[in-house]
Amino acid sequence: MPTLRLALAQVNPTVGDLPGNAAIVREWSRAAADSGAQLVAFPEMMLTGYPVEDLVFRESFVAASQAALHRLAADLAGDGLGDLPVVVGYLDADGPARVSSEASPDRGPRDALALLHGGRVAATYYKHHLPNYGVFDEDRYFVPGDTLTVVRMAGVDVALTVCEDIWQAGGPFAVARQARVGLVVNINGSPYELDKDDVRLPLVQRRAAEAGAAVAYVNMVGGQDELVFDGDSIVVAADGTLLARSPQFAEHLLIHDVELPPAALDAPTGDLGEMRVDRVAVAPLPAAPAGTVEGGIAVRVTNEAEVWHALVLGLRDYVDKNGFRSVVLGLSGGIDSSVVAAIAVDALGPHRVVGVSMPSQHSSGHSRDDAADLAKRTGLDYRVEAIQPMVDAFLANMSLSGLAVENLQARVRGVILMALSNQEGHLVLTTGNKSELAVGYSTLYGDSVGGFNPLKDVPKTLVWKLATWRNAEAERRGSEPPIPDSSITKPPSAELRPGQLDTDSLPDYAELDAILAGYVDGDKGRDELVAEGHDPAVVDRVLRLVDGAEYKRRQAAPGTKISIKAFGRDRRLPITNRWREPSSS
Amino acid sequence: MPTLRLALAQVNPTVGDLPGNAAIVREWSRAAADSGAQLVAFPEMMLTGYPVEDLVFRESFVAASQAALHRLAADLAGDGLGDLPVVVGYLDADGPARVSSEASPDRGPRDALALLHGGRVAATYYKHHLPNYGVFDEDRYFVPGDTLTVVRMAGVDVALTVCEDIWQAGGPFAVARQARVGLVVNINGSPYELDKDDVRLPLVQRRAAEAGAAVAYVNMVGGQDELVFDGDSIVVAADGTLLARSPQFAEHLLIHDVELPPAALDAPTGDLGEMRVDRVAVAPLPAAPAGTVEGGIAVRVTNEAEVWHALVLGLRDYVDKNGFRSVVLGLSGGIDSSVVAAIAVDALGPHRVVGVSMPSQHSSGHSRDDAADLAKRTGLDYRVEAIQPMVDAFLANMSLSGLAVENLQARVRGVILMALSNQEGHLVLTTGNKSELAVGYSTLYGDSVGGFNPLKDVPKTLVWKLATWRNAEAERRGSEPPIPDSSITKPPSAELRPGQLDTDSLPDYAELDAILAGYVDGDKGRDELVAEGHDPAVVDRVLRLVDGAEYKRRQAAPGTKISIKAFGRDRRLPITNRWREPSSS
Repeated sequence: MPTLRLALAQVNPTVGDLPGNAAIVREWSRAAADSGAQLVAFPEMMLTGYPVEDLVFRESFVAASQAALHRLAADLAGDGLGDLPVVVGYLDADGPARVSSEASPDRGPRDALALLHGGRVAATYYKHHLPNYGVFDEDRYFVPGDTLTVVRMAGVDVALTVCEDIWQAGGPFAVARQARVGLVVNINGSPYELDKDDVRLPLVQRRAAEAGAAVAYVNMVGGQDELVFDGDSIVVAADGTLLARSPQFAEHLLIHDVELPPAALDAPTGDLGEMRVDRVAVAPLPAAPAGTVEGGIAVRVTNEAEVWHALVLGLRDYVDKNGFRSVVLGLSGGIDSSVVAAIAVDALGPHRVVGVSMPSQHSSGHSRDDAADLAKRTGLDYRVEAIQPMVDAFLANMSLSGLAVENLQARVRGVILMALSNQEGHLVLTTGNKSELAVGYSTLYGDSVGGFNPLKDVPKTLVWKLATWRNAEAERRGSEPPIPDSSITKPPSAELRPGQLDTDSLPDYAELDAILAGYVDGDKGRDELVAEGHDPAVVDRVLRLVDGAEYKRRQAAPGTKISIKAFGRDRRLPITNRWREPSSS
Repeated sequence: MPTLRLALAQVNPTVGDLPGNAAIVREWSRAAADSGAQLVAFPEMMLTGYPVEDLVFRESFVAASQAALHRLAADLAGDGLGDLPVVVGYLDADGPARVSSEASPDRGPRDALALLHGGRVAATYYKHHLPNYGVFDEDRYFVPGDTLTVVRMAGVDVALTVCEDIWQAGGPFAVARQARVGLVVNINGSPYELDKDDVRLPLVQRRAAEAGAAVAYVNMVGGQDELVFDGDSIVVAADGTLLARSPQFAEHLLIHDVELPPAALDAPTGDLGEMRVDRVAVAPLPAAPAGTVEGGIAVRVTNEAEVWHALVLGLRDYVDKNGFRSVVLGLSGGIDSSVVAAIAVDALGPHRVVGVSMPSQHSSGHSRDDAADLAKRTGLDYRVEAIQPMVDAFLANMSLSGLAVENLQARVRGVILMALSNQEGHLVLTTGNKSELAVGYSTLYGDSVGGFNPLKDVPKTLVWKLATWRNAEAERRGSEPPIPDSSITKPPSAELRPGQLDTDSLPDYAELDAILAGYVDGDKGRDELVAEGHDPAVVDRVLRLVDGAEYKRRQAAPGTKISIKAFGRDRRLPITNRWREPSSS
C-alpha cells in the first residue's frame, strides 16, 4: 500500500488579517515540508479567519480573499514549497451575495477550500452542507457546493471536504465512497463545547465507515469573540482505528504517515447522482520520506481542565487580537471575580491584570481581605477605591431608597472601572456567571460593565469546580494556589445591603443550575422540569426570572461559549414576549 | 362572475400572548361578519405573534399554539361565526425541531396557516419560501412546505400562502396558475422599511400576473422589539389593478368585494411537479351580501410622516407590550433628545414621559433653556438634576483627565437616569442616532444607557428632517410645534468640554451620512465610496471609526428598524476583526 505523510496544521488565524493568516500558512507549510510531509492541510476559512459574518457581503473583502489565495500560491512556490500540496480554506464567490429575496441564485459566496500546488490553485471545493443552527448562520451567507473534488497525488485519491460536511450523513462522504477515494480531508472551524471532543472521534469514525476511507480532520484553534476553537485534530484509518490526535487549545502540527490504497484506475467521475465528482491530478509531490512518523495520540483532559483552557484562550485572544495591553476588573473577594482574575493572570500574566477592590459600608472585612489575598497570590496590580464618597454624593442630591440604592453602589463601581479604562487603556472584564445572567441577578451598567466576560457561559456550580480544580492543579505543580480558600467556601453575597446573601432571592445554586440546564440549554418546558423532580414553585419562579431578564442579556458583554447553548447568538429570544410557561397542566 | 366579500384584518398581535391574540381574531371576525364578509384573513403567525425566534424550539410553546388554534376554531363557531372562513397564521410542527446537525428532516416546525370553518380546522398550509437574510433566520426554525392548499368556497378557488411566498418568483404563485385559482390569499408579518411600501404594490402586481389571479395581501401592524410592522394591506385584481389598500401603522379592517372567476371543474390537483396541490371545499358560507362594498385606497404619506409614525408605534408597543407605565430620558436641549421626547409624547402622552435636564459646568445656557422650552411645549414631566456634585466626588477621589473626564460626566448622567428608573419604575430611553452609533460617538454606559432607543436606525440628517416635519405638521393642525427652533438650528455638540462641537471630531453630517449609507447600508467598499466622489481621507477616517465601534454597538439598546440595514440582527459583524478597507488601490 502507498504511504502518504500527512501534516495537519492546527493553527490560530485572526478574522480579517489576510496577510497575517497567509504568513501562518507559509511558516507552517515550511515546518511541514521540513518534516517530510507530502500533504499539509489548514483549517476552514484559514485565509480570512472564521466566522467572518457579514463581511461576506463586502465585495472588496471577497476580492481580497481571492487575491490573497493566488498570492499565497505563488509565495509558497517562491519559498521552494511548490511541490507540497497545501490545502487551505478561504472565502470565494462565483456570483453576488443574496442580501434580499426575489432571487434564488445557485451562484454566490462560497465557504471554499483550495489545494495549492506548483505556484497555482490546482483544485477548489465548495462546502456542501451548510450549518444554520446554534451559532451558525451559513444559509445567510453561502451557496452550497454540489461537486466533490478528488485529487490524485502520489498514486492515491484524496477527497476534499469542509467542516459541516462531516457532521451530516450523506453528501460528500457518501459520494467519496462511490468515487472510491483512499482518504478524505476535512478542514474545520469547529467551536468548542463541553463534551464535543467526546462526540468528535465517533463522528469521524462513522464518516470513515461511510466513505470507506481514512479521514484526516483538522480544526483551528483560538478565540474569536464568543467562540473558541479547540483544535483536537484527528486522523483515523478506513476501519475507524484512531491513528493520531492533537491536543486541545494549543497550536500543533500533527504529522502522521498513513497507509492508503492505490488509486483505482477505473474509479467513476462526473455526475454520480447526489453530487458531481471532479478529478484533478497533481505532480510532482515531495519524495516519499525515509523512516516512519507517528503523530501520537494526545491524552484527554478532565472537563474542568478543558473549560479552564477554553476560558484562558478565549480571553487571551480577545485581548490580544483586539490590541489591548491590559485588563481591569473589580475584586470583591467573591468566587466569580476571583476566578476571572485567575483566568486573566493565566491568560495574560499578572503584569497585564489590574484588580480593584471597591469596598462600601456593606462590604465585609473578609471581602477586602480575600481580595488582597488573591492579589498577593497572583501578583496582579492591586488597587483600592472606596465608593462611599461618590455614593454619598448621589444620595445627597437624589431621593433614593431600597433597590435604587443597592444598584447605585454597583453603578458607582462601574463608573470607577470605566474611568480607569479610559484613563489607562485597560479592557474592563465583567464577571457575572451564566446562572446570574440567566435570572438577571446583576445590575445593568453596574457590575455588568465591561468589554468581555470570561464566565458568561459558566454556571455558578461550575465556577466553584473550576476554582477547586485550578487550586489543586497549582498544588500538583508545586506553585501557589491562586484563589483564597474562603472565596470558595463562603456563602455567595452581592453585599449591596447588610447581611445580604444570594440565597435570600435565589434558590440554592445546585438546584438553580439544574433547572437552568433544562430550561436554557435544553429548551424544556415547565411540566418537563417538574416531571424531572424539581419543586414546582421553584421552577415557576426561576422561569419567570429567566424570561424577565432577556433585556439585560441583550446588552451583556460577549464571553466565551463553552456549553451547548450560550446566551447570545446561540439562544435568540424576543424581549417583548408575553409567553410564560403555564404553571399548571 | 361570482363576487366574494373579502375582509383583511390588519391587526396588532403580541408575541407569546396566545389568549390575547385569539381574542383579537374573535373580535375582528365578528366585525368582518357584521360587514357581510365571506372570508376574513389575519396576518402570519397571528396566534403566536411574530417573530417568536427560539420559542420555536420549546415544545410546550408549539403545543400551546396548536391547542389555541383548535380552541379558536371551536370558539368562533360558538360565537355564531362557524360559516365564516377565517384564515390565521400559527406555529405548527409535524416533527421535532432541528437544533443540531446530523439530521436533515423533512418534518419539523412550520410557519403555518389554517383556515378555520365550521368549528374546526378545515385546511392548513405550510409556508414554502423561507427568508434567511436581513433580520430573518427562518432556515434556523422552519421546514418549508411543499404543498399548495386550494380551498373551494362559494364557487371560487382560493389558494393560501404566507409572506415570503410572495417575495419570490416560482413556487406557490406559479403553481397557483397551474391550479387555475381565482384568488391567492397571502398573510404577512412583513416589517417596515423606508420605501418598502413603494416596492410592495408592484410586487403584489407581479405575483398577480404570475398566478393569473387576484391577490389579497394582509400584513400585521405594531412593534416587536426592533421591528415595526406597517400594515399596508392590499387587494389587486388578476390584471394588476389596485382595488383596495389599507393605511400604514394603524389597525384596519379592509373590506372589499372582489369579482372572481368561477372555479374550473377540471382544474388539476395532486403532484404538479414544483409542488403538490391539495384541494378542500368549505360550505356553507355566509350568504352573498346585498350591495357592494369598496375598501378604498389609503393615501400614501411622505417619508418623514412614514418614519415618524413607525417610530411612534415602535416605541408605544415596546413600552406597552412590556408593561411599562412611563419613560424617562435626559434632555440636553439638543436635537436628538428633543425629537425622542416629541416621539415619546406622541406615543404615550405627556403624563407618561419624564424629561431630565442634567446640566454640567460645560452646558450652555441655551441648552437648559431649550430643554425647559421643549418641556413647556410638550407638557412632559420636567426635572433638573445637576451633575457637578457627583462628578466632583469622582474627581476628588480618582486621578482623571481628558476623555476620562468627558465620559465621566456622561456616565454620571446615566447613573442618575437609572436611579430614577429604579426608584420610580420608568423605562429609560436613550437617544443616540444611527450616525453616532455608526462611528461610536457616544459614551458606553453613559448617554447610551437605556432600554430602548427610538433613533437607533435614524441617521442624523433624517433626525433634523423629522423635527422640521413634526413642527410643520403641528402648525398645519393648529397646535404648538413641540421642538424648539433653536434645537433644530444650533450646531450639534456633546457639551462635555468647553466649546466642543461634533464637527471637531466628525465630518459634516451630510457627508458622514452619505458615506455611512454606502458603507453600512450598502456594504460598499472604500474604493467604491471614493469613486462616488467622497474625499478619500474622510472615507478612510469614517470607515475606521465604524469598524472600531462594533463593541459599543453590541451592547446598544434595541430600537426601531426603519432602514434596509439596521444595526443589530440585520447587520452582523465580528468585534474581533482586523479587516480594514485598503486605503489605496
